[in-house]
Amino acid sequence: MSESGLFQPPWNFLGLPEELADPARARAWIMPIPYESTTSYGAGTRNGPAAIVAASRQVELFDRELDCEVGAEVGVHTMNPLGLVHRSPDAMVEAVAGAVAGVLTGSPRPELLAVLGGEHTISAGVARGLARAASAHDLVAVQIDAHADLRDEYEGSAFSHACAARRILDVCPLFQIGVRNISAGEEEFRRGSSRVKTVFSEDVARGSGFLGELADFVRGKSVFLTIDLDGLDPSIMAAVGTPEPDGLSWTQTLEVVRVVCREARQLPVFDVVELAPIPGLLGPDFLAAKLVYKIISLALIRRGQR
Amino acid sequence: MSESGLFQPPWNFLGLPEELADPARARAWIMPIPYESTTSYGAGTRNGPAAIVAASRQVELFDRELDCEVGAEVGVHTMNPLGLVHRSPDAMVEAVAGAVAGVLTGSPRPELLAVLGGEHTISAGVARGLARAASAHDLVAVQIDAHADLRDEYEGSAFSHACAARRILDVCPLFQIGVRNISAGEEEFRRGSSRVKTVFSEDVARGSGFLGELADFVRGKSVFLTIDLDGLDPSIMAAVGTPEPDGLSWTQTLEVVRVVCREARQLPVFDVVELAPIPGLLGPDFLAAKLVYKIISLALIRRGQR
Amino acid sequence: MSESGLFQPPWNFLGLPEELADPARARAWIMPIPYESTTSYGAGTRNGPAAIVAASRQVELFDRELDCEVGAEVGVHTMNPLGLVHRSPDAMVEAVAGAVAGVLTGSPRPELLAVLGGEHTISAGVARGLARAASAHDLVAVQIDAHADLRDEYEGSAFSHACAARRILDVCPLFQIGVRNISAGEEEFRRGSSRVKTVFSEDVARGSGFLGELADFVRGKSVFLTIDLDGLDPSIMAAVGTPEPDGLSWTQTLEVVRVVCREARQLPVFDVVELAPIPGLLGPDFLAAKLVYKIISLALIRRGQR
Amino acid sequence: MSESGLFQPPWNFLGLPEELADPARARAWIMPIPYESTTSYGAGTRNGPAAIVAASRQVELFDRELDCEVGAEVGVHTMNPLGLVHRSPDAMVEAVAGAVAGVLTGSPRPELLAVLGGEHTISAGVARGLARAASAHDLVAVQIDAHADLRDEYEGSAFSHACAARRILDVCPLFQIGVRNISAGEEEFRRGSSRVKTVFSEDVARGSGFLGELADFVRGKSVFLTIDLDGLDPSIMAAVGTPEPDGLSWTQTLEVVRVVCREARQLPVFDVVELAPIPGLLGPDFLAAKLVYKIISLALIRRGQR
Amino acid sequence: MSESGLFQPPWNFLGLPEELADPARARAWIMPIPYESTTSYGAGTRNGPAAIVAASRQVELFDRELDCEVGAEVGVHTMNPLGLVHRSPDAMVEAVAGAVAGVLTGSPRPELLAVLGGEHTISAGVARGLARAASAHDLVAVQIDAHADLRDEYEGSAFSHACAARRILDVCPLFQIGVRNISAGEEEFRRGSSRVKTVFSEDVARGSGFLGELADFVRGKSVFLTIDLDGLDPSIMAAVGTPEPDGLSWTQTLEVVRVVCREARQLPVFDVVELAPIPGLLGPDFLAAKLVYKIISLALIRRGQR
Amino acid sequence: MSESGLFQPPWNFLGLPEELADPARARAWIMPIPYESTTSYGAGTRNGPAAIVAASRQVELFDRELDCEVGAEVGVHTMNPLGLVHRSPDAMVEAVAGAVAGVLTGSPRPELLAVLGGEHTISAGVARGLARAASAHDLVAVQIDAHADLRDEYEGSAFSHACAARRILDVCPLFQIGVRNISAGEEEFRRGSSRVKTVFSEDVARGSGFLGELADFVRGKSVFLTIDLDGLDPSIMAAVGTPEPDGLSWTQTLEVVRVVCREARQLPVFDVVELAPIPGLLGPDFLAAKLVYKIISLALIRRGQR
Repeated sequence: MSESGLFQPPWNFLGLPEELADPARARAWIMPIPYESTTSYGAGTRNGPAAIVAASRQVELFDRELDCEVGAEVGVHTMNPLGLVHRSPDAMVEAVAGAVAGVLTGSPRPELLAVLGGEHTISAGVARGLARAASAHDLVAVQIDAHADLRDEYEGSAFSHACAARRILDVCPLFQIGVRNISAGEEEFRRGSSRVKTVFSEDVARGSGFLGELADFVRGKSVFLTIDLDGLDPSIMAAVGTPEPDGLSWTQTLEVVRVVCREARQLPVFDVVELAPIPGLLGPDFLAAKLVYKIISLALIRRGQR
Repeated sequence: MSESGLFQPPWNFLGLPEELADPARARAWIMPIPYESTTSYGAGTRNGPAAIVAASRQVELFDRELDCEVGAEVGVHTMNPLGLVHRSPDAMVEAVAGAVAGVLTGSPRPELLAVLGGEHTISAGVARGLARAASAHDLVAVQIDAHADLRDEYEGSAFSHACAARRILDVCPLFQIGVRNISAGEEEFRRGSSRVKTVFSEDVARGSGFLGELADFVRGKSVFLTIDLDGLDPSIMAAVGTPEPDGLSWTQTLEVVRVVCREARQLPVFDVVELAPIPGLLGPDFLAAKLVYKIISLALIRRGQR
Repeated sequence: MSESGLFQPPWNFLGLPEELADPARARAWIMPIPYESTTSYGAGTRNGPAAIVAASRQVELFDRELDCEVGAEVGVHTMNPLGLVHRSPDAMVEAVAGAVAGVLTGSPRPELLAVLGGEHTISAGVARGLARAASAHDLVAVQIDAHADLRDEYEGSAFSHACAARRILDVCPLFQIGVRNISAGEEEFRRGSSRVKTVFSEDVARGSGFLGELADFVRGKSVFLTIDLDGLDPSIMAAVGTPEPDGLSWTQTLEVVRVVCREARQLPVFDVVELAPIPGLLGPDFLAAKLVYKIISLALIRRGQR
Repeated sequence: MSESGLFQPPWNFLGLPEELADPARARAWIMPIPYESTTSYGAGTRNGPAAIVAASRQVELFDRELDCEVGAEVGVHTMNPLGLVHRSPDAMVEAVAGAVAGVLTGSPRPELLAVLGGEHTISAGVARGLARAASAHDLVAVQIDAHADLRDEYEGSAFSHACAARRILDVCPLFQIGVRNISAGEEEFRRGSSRVKTVFSEDVARGSGFLGELADFVRGKSVFLTIDLDGLDPSIMAAVGTPEPDGLSWTQTLEVVRVVCREARQLPVFDVVELAPIPGLLGPDFLAAKLVYKIISLALIRRGQR
Repeated sequence: MSESGLFQPPWNFLGLPEELADPARARAWIMPIPYESTTSYGAGTRNGPAAIVAASRQVELFDRELDCEVGAEVGVHTMNPLGLVHRSPDAMVEAVAGAVAGVLTGSPRPELLAVLGGEHTISAGVARGLARAASAHDLVAVQIDAHADLRDEYEGSAFSHACAARRILDVCPLFQIGVRNISAGEEEFRRGSSRVKTVFSEDVARGSGFLGELADFVRGKSVFLTIDLDGLDPSIMAAVGTPEPDGLSWTQTLEVVRVVCREARQLPVFDVVELAPIPGLLGPDFLAAKLVYKIISLALIRRGQR
Repeated sequence: MSESGLFQPPWNFLGLPEELADPARARAWIMPIPYESTTSYGAGTRNGPAAIVAASRQVELFDRELDCEVGAEVGVHTMNPLGLVHRSPDAMVEAVAGAVAGVLTGSPRPELLAVLGGEHTISAGVARGLARAASAHDLVAVQIDAHADLRDEYEGSAFSHACAARRILDVCPLFQIGVRNISAGEEEFRRGSSRVKTVFSEDVARGSGFLGELADFVRGKSVFLTIDLDGLDPSIMAAVGTPEPDGLSWTQTLEVVRVVCREARQLPVFDVVELAPIPGLLGPDFLAAKLVYKIISLALIRRGQR
């Protein structure tokens, strides 16, 4: 929330003045992808990115933990949203992959790309784009989610939101946190796979023991962090399509982010997906905006540039 | 609304007792298609069919114009909804075509199939299924709609809702009523085509002169009637994705239906699409349910079976 | 809407200062009855009276037609709401009858009692109370309603909202306006009864011819006017449980009120029922408040007291 | 959530295919009772059962704790809802008692009947029906609730929701958990009664010590479990009429269920009541559906049939 | 609604590509003023401008009446919103006047400035800014409004929304259309003033006779058109703070606009105010966007530049 | 919630009968101040006081901790709301100060004044009024809040909600609890000021250590307690304009209240502000009402009058 003159700041993440939102100097870029097509139950993720940007304009720039106004120091550029409404899921995934790879290899380009969903299916495109942009040999993914999303196919599609994690696994190993909804088939696959590690919600509830494992998993790696907001507890994140009881608290979520940002070699891209804003209920939008800002802050400031 | 005993009637259109909803003897069948994928702006048509069925349970069975309890006389069977959520638009259109053709040529089969949408794209499938089921040589279509929907392609897809009418034109000639939103390209196409006749909303407002033309168009034909509810005025039909001012009144809508039912040789199938229910606002759901019931009533009773 | 000092006016109809709301001198009293029990579909009439009072505080006191600030001239007292939530329908009807008779025969007592519902069932109690308070020999009732409500019994109860008009008929003859939903049994009853006259919505649409009949019906009589708000068109009155298309306009509604107020010998009581407020949609609440105020104005000022 | 073909599964709990929902072989039956009449404040419990069924269609069949797809193994039949809208509370209670006794002694009959409310008053009918169906000599009841509901009468009715627990006490001893709202009269009654044991919310907050007492209470008994959802904390269960702070968490609720299912001789019937769905807020509906499924799972699988 | 590539168009009125939204060549500019402070009843006008811009992105560019894609021909630039939230009404009015005068006399500058409110109070600032920018000798104002807004002061403030028209009268003569709510004091003032002409809603209902008077009033003048959306009928414009029955239809509104655009010497600025969007109800937002676009179209194209 | 006769209790806090709400004998008074003007993001605090009063009518009078029906013992008078809608923030603050001082020094006067907001800005007026009424030499303030609100000026105003705490500091020292949003400038000011002590939310999360400090701060003092409801966690208090994750639980909030009521010499006034009710979501309103009642109870009963 910047304190403005007669006119409001432009419509961008954090409501930054134009010089701080200039792509040529912003170290973080925001890519909104308001895609929604395969949702089963609650709808509205197409409105998620706009709600996060709107809420971000109320977020305080000063971060007490880092003792600085991060947004002003690093600069954040907000891209126009991807307009993929009319594409089928597989065409959308390919388009997202192209857009992500284009940003990560373009010039100017950001140190960190924050993708805002839209439904979880877009993460398959993000992972592919990342693999395409960078050598993928040390790429790993960390997922916060209520659902395993490990189906290879769902109702005839390999690109349903129920397959999001499986498509990421096509690209790199995966560490899942907060899962509490898994099908028989997914459970069987999971047990037989060495590439996926699942920390169930009851494991999270038992304490932070799993954080050591997570640290080992990401240490020295290039990490793709994907947060399906339904991984958080419905008491603080009501605005998701299938809110499952027994999710992560705000504190537990930040602990995961801190471990990733501290131990990873780099975090070139992350996404925050599945916000389906509920008119009148501002808390979830605000929490999502604050989470995105906190990840940007911990990722870019921890690297010692201050 | 049937007056019940200790238990409520089953979950079907009109809340009919099981014997009146038996597919073996029902002359009308309801096919709900809660498909939504390509919507631009307002969302929620996936909830349309369920809302119409819910509202229909409050509709009075007795029709004063026809002086009978139509639902009890003709019987209405409600099918399970088509589950197409995860399909791409073209796969969905093909699936709808198959389902419609299957119903119209199966045994038992209804005299009249009422399709409930879902977005307008499904009408392309309904038209194809109808053409496949019947010899199409005398098939014509009548469309109530705020939008011409005559694009040949929209954002790379031939099966967007913006192309719904064009896809019907692939099958048969078309008479459009209530249009008040048309692109430059559509207008040019329309002027150059002998197969499409468009009655704009200002023509409707000038009075019922166009009804004679409509009567000539449908007389002795097999008619597919497709009603995009945004053709009606937003004052009585708020629950649509793009509510355009200056639409048809309830009375004007029924006049169109009466002409079609009176003059057509047969009306094997119609659809009512694009209801996107607004929680708490019952009027649009109720109007849509009453409209569906009225079309069934005028189509099946006018044939003189009483 | 009175222009206030430091503190807002008390919580009463029109937001009148205490001296104008004093029961000892107010010529009109408001009796809120937030009763709701037998509703089938849309719920919320229990919130109707409070919403009407809230909206009335925004209504302009000055009436241009009557060229005075009616509320300030006549005074309006707002009673505490009847607390009948936990009663069965028949106990509620008896309690309402007692309360209405008590007000009409008490001291001080108003010239005009305006009852705010709550569901239509309360009108049975109002009619009984009125008959009890006054000699009923010249009592007649006028009803604006989408439904005939002429069932003698509905799902085992004689006091369902679907029986509201039939219970009034137990007390006096009835003139119904705007009906467009009637069951086969009600239609048969209606045709056979000399005590009920029904003006259907299509008769209203044809023009104001029925107003002459209405004038003859009420001329010189003591009239009970009961307005089920679903008699109005859903485009201007969305906040009812079963909104039926093709209802009365604001102008048509006022025409009925004007005839009643001009021709009746007296209008000791009227009710406005079935408002089920929709959060965020102020129009229906405001219209209902304005209608109540207009009836009070036309009833009390026409008598020439100015 | 079963993975479907072209058509969606029928409208039943869990969205099971017809063979798994067949009453002749389903071990659990669902009885929806959308009754609402005496509510004081927030309304909408009449929509509770339909919302639970709708949400259940998104619940994952696989239960990791029990390592099987419970719904597919035991079968669940969903009855048509009881249609009691127009009855007074005492007539409703008698009708519910008759329906419950009818199911429990009929043929075919389920091992477990799950009743979905509707307001808490229905539990009085469930308890009576259970006592009528079975010898009641070893019957006990366990109640999760924010309110003691121990009034003998409330505003003239013995069958208000504020009397729900008192009416159960007429039938058998009662163990209450989570109470945090009690009147002076109820507190006095409770202290003087040996048949009711109340665990207040602060006792629950102190830890699971009360679970031993609960185990002793239900051990070897036939148990009626009644869950008023307002017993849960408003942070996870917002959709109730009077949400009281300081309620049970999801984990605490499941602990109670586990003790009951493990220690009781049998659990022939339970109810989950007072869900008043909030449009747009899916979490409470989903939690309620998952809770119902979990109770069915723990009750039927623990008996060692696998 | 422009058909886009991979990325959506920028966040501007009509969703125009950047070259068409460039201030250096756009003939129309949009100035959003989301100010809300003195509202009495319904709130939310601070969200009006953003809702109009969002809806405008769905408006079809092609205008059949003018037979061209107006937005593409004239270009429309959307300014950042004025950020006046924390100012008192009089400071806000001065700031708006400064901003409007600045735009009208700046370089580059638009031929037509469209101001989007926000509450009606802003119109006082717009009128002042216009008078400051241009010689005011031939300036007149046309107001569509349900309320006379002619109070000189309201609850101690000269800049309440209830004084909006009076403040415009400080600057120039005024023609009011659609008024149906006026206080005794306003009525007295109006009758005594030669500078204000009021066409009440019943005059509008009687037919288009007043349009001749309007034509005479604006002919050859520089006109400020101010549209309080509550002047329109609540059936088509529900999203206002005090929706009064008996307002203008869409057709009547356009007739006023056509007369103004045809007869005026110039229309340098207009405003559309008091939209208080209702979440989920798209019709009013869409109508407002279409109205703004239509005024721009008729104002800029009628001048014969094509 | 008092159990009533035929008519509901008057519209006051707790729904008390008139004799218990008589200002001449009530020991606590409620002053509603529905002022909202400077809000940035979520709106609606103008509806807060009415929602708290409405919810309070469902609160159980009996307090188990204090073992009495507090409301009946002490009496609570509810004043008409202050009508300040049209004033600028500084005029409003002065009016509130006058009203508060008037109540505290008037006759009859309450022992405890509970102010219901409205936006936090009103607290500046409350503090001034209190200082004016009493010798301020031992006055201290305790604030529960997510925001430091220590700006000296915000967008040109010294009376924005972002300055609420700074304006209290003008009057007396301040102890803040639950802060988790602070600007760089506020943090710098805070570190340099000996008059303000801030307990951040992470300090609260670490346990109740800060309660000792709080006890020392208030011991023997005259305390003004100001609770911005956004200090509580969004999971239990969603209905605020800027819901920040990581707030106080219900239990933590009551611990603060208990320390204040136990250790202070007196608590002449407190306020509970920033409730922006969300239609349909009753929990926050109910929690706020219960909190107000609990503070009244602990403040008036602890003094040993029983």
